[in-house]
Amino acid sequence: MLYYLFTYLDQEYDLPGAGVFQFITFRAAMAIIFSLIICLLFGKSIINLLHRKQVGETIRDLGLEGQAQKAGTPTMGGLMILAGILLPVLLFAKLENIYIILLLITTVWMGVIGFVDDYIKVFKKNKAGLRGQFKVAGQIGLGLIVGTILYFNPQVTIKEKIKDPLVVQEAQAASNSSLPVYGQAEKSTKTTIPFFKNNELDYSRILKWIGPDYRKWSWLIFIPIVIFIITAVSNGANLTDGIDGLATGTSAIIGITLGVFAYVSGSIIFADYLNIMYIPNTGELVVFIAAFVGACIGFLWYNAYPAQIFMGDTGSLSLGGIIAVFAIAIRKELLIPIVCGIFLVENLSVILQVSYFKYTRKKFGEGRRIFKMSPLHHHYQKLGYNESKIVTRFWIIGIFLAVLTFVTLKLR
Amino acid sequence: MLYYLFTYLDQEYDLPGAGVFQFITFRAAMAIIFSLIICLLFGKSIINLLHRKQVGETIRDLGLEGQAQKAGTPTMGGLMILAGILLPVLLFAKLENIYIILLLITTVWMGVIGFVDDYIKVFKKNKAGLRGQFKVAGQIGLGLIVGTILYFNPQVTIKEKIKDPLVVQEAQAASNSSLPVYGQAEKSTKTTIPFFKNNELDYSRILKWIGPDYRKWSWLIFIPIVIFIITAVSNGANLTDGIDGLATGTSAIIGITLGVFAYVSGSIIFADYLNIMYIPNTGELVVFIAAFVGACIGFLWYNAYPAQIFMGDTGSLSLGGIIAVFAIAIRKELLIPIVCGIFLVENLSVILQVSYFKYTRKKFGEGRRIFKMSPLHHHYQKLGYNESKIVTRFWIIGIFLAVLTFVTLKLR
Repeated sequence: MLYYLFTYLDQEYDLPGAGVFQFITFRAAMAIIFSLIICLLFGKSIINLLHRKQVGETIRDLGLEGQAQKAGTPTMGGLMILAGILLPVLLFAKLENIYIILLLITTVWMGVIGFVDDYIKVFKKNKAGLRGQFKVAGQIGLGLIVGTILYFNPQVTIKEKIKDPLVVQEAQAASNSSLPVYGQAEKSTKTTIPFFKNNELDYSRILKWIGPDYRKWSWLIFIPIVIFIITAVSNGANLTDGIDGLATGTSAIIGITLGVFAYVSGSIIFADYLNIMYIPNTGELVVFIAAFVGACIGFLWYNAYPAQIFMGDTGSLSLGGIIAVFAIAIRKELLIPIVCGIFLVENLSVILQVSYFKYTRKKFGEGRRIFKMSPLHHHYQKLGYNESKIVTRFWIIGIFLAVLTFVTLKLR
Repeated sequence: MLYYLFTYLDQEYDLPGAGVFQFITFRAAMAIIFSLIICLLFGKSIINLLHRKQVGETIRDLGLEGQAQKAGTPTMGGLMILAGILLPVLLFAKLENIYIILLLITTVWMGVIGFVDDYIKVFKKNKAGLRGQFKVAGQIGLGLIVGTILYFNPQVTIKEKIKDPLVVQEAQAASNSSLPVYGQAEKSTKTTIPFFKNNELDYSRILKWIGPDYRKWSWLIFIPIVIFIITAVSNGANLTDGIDGLATGTSAIIGITLGVFAYVSGSIIFADYLNIMYIPNTGELVVFIAAFVGACIGFLWYNAYPAQIFMGDTGSLSLGGIIAVFAIAIRKELLIPIVCGIFLVENLSVILQVSYFKYTRKKFGEGRRIFKMSPLHHHYQKLGYNESKIVTRFWIIGIFLAVLTFVTLKLR
């Protein structure tokens, strides 16, 4: 909202310095600073409040060292993250931007799902079944909303670079400029695919076999993909959130990576120079992701080992949902297996562990395990690694994966 | 060196994909990946080697919790950092670039100073006086070398944007382009100053009072400034290296920040768009700082709490020296008090503690303390904070300072 205020002050009263609110980088910097301050200043009060309400997580006895001392640590700290995202975004982003609206919906939606889930867990213990169904329904619901908006909203477009040298010359002569020439905004189901030369894949092509009308039906492909991605990533974040600071730091690293993509995808100059897809209006998402990163880092202040607060599903489902929707919005969702590699591996470790256990129980009469425990981070705890060390090393792998993500696109 | 090999292969044999070595971002990504791999793969062997050579740091008894268990942890881990910087830079950077040469000199010089210092400490105990003098001589020596090269080398230049609309029009018409027009490369003692409108300060102006010939004497100002900055920053890094992972992580955060500045300062398009000083050839430094960040993060794998190895002065003096020289090379050294705020505060905490102690001893007969212990991180340890928590929080403050650094330049 401050964007509108200062733009008004700048235009009507020529207020010195107010023009700086035009710049995405300035508003993004303000958003990150603001979200850090919100978390750092109010964190202590939120922790005390949750303590008083007795919102301590019921710690399952996993036989892990140092586990007993975690009992009584309040959960639902995700509320701090939600505040750290929503307030700065409302203050500094352009609220009519479709992508900002989409991410605000995602944040609130997943926040509510996570909160209800935590509430059931804390106050109405042992309702695991109800919780699972509720989560999945929430994820599918969000996928439907997001997929529909992205597919049908006329503001969600891409522009393609014009390559015909004659057209380019004409356009440049007409505008007396040598800037790259991009076509009209167009609806498209194109996305970015790593490793391939032109880096682009059109989802609707998958349906080409049904005949010339295939583009009409491409929502049949697109929306299920969106649902799948949201479900997978938010489950991944959920499972990763098992030791102090792991999901928080990992999400911050992913956020920074996605933020760089949003910044360059939303600018004609950068998109052209780096040879990636130009997606009008996604630059504004940098303000959102800045608040997101700030909220993660601010929360980490209290969530770092030894944690004074846990994020709960309020936090982890939101973080995962936001990352998924953000990546889809900037058409980088096929990079998720790399950039969110930690979530993927945590997910896989559970799936493998459970499947193998069931398979061996059926075959040999007794269930066997691949890992000493799943999700993966617990495996290393069982091996005797210090909790803090495991977390730092997972972060380092996260950074490594972020660098790899850039390499796959062969940016120049 | 691979740069030359692949450029040759690309030009002579048209080897597919070899052209990608032209791109700074690609070589920077390779440098960071390579330095991470070097540290991760050879880290364990280096630790074992140092263990065998009995290079354990003599831990002073500071009465801190968990300190005894640190005895026997090998030091001189800075060797790992040096390898993680030098090898990737030799492989992926353009070695004729003056800035790369400058940073290679810095790395080796400070590495040797630090190594000798560590050697005296470990094998010839209690030679604190000798060590102190040696360090200061090394820092001043490096300052002289770096200051002289930067001041006199003809490759170290800036280009200024031409503002005269007539000249701009003419140049654009002549080159049939609308790109911003920059003047000839020129020697200059201009640097970037935060908060001020045009963001520039010319050191030589300080001597204006001596008459019209003042520019001849500006090395009298410039070289002492370089010496001061190198000494201050490397001492700061040296003091910060007191608890597991602190100097390592802080340096990585500073490195990323400086890397962004180097990338945009070295590109006409970005420098113009973001309205910051254009410094030809500094883009290549991105490859160097990528290796630097990779080495810090790779070292952190083993140095994170609980540390299996310490960097020693071999590491901390090098890290500080590199950061100082890098910042001076990209003319962002006046941002050091902000971006290296952690080093500054650690430095100040020692100066304040010692001065106040001496002052009160003289005045009241007994020395008093401001902090429970200095450098600052020990103060928090004495207050009972967990070592891992202190480190993570210092990192968070480092990230906050990095964001502030960008804000001070009012980038758009």
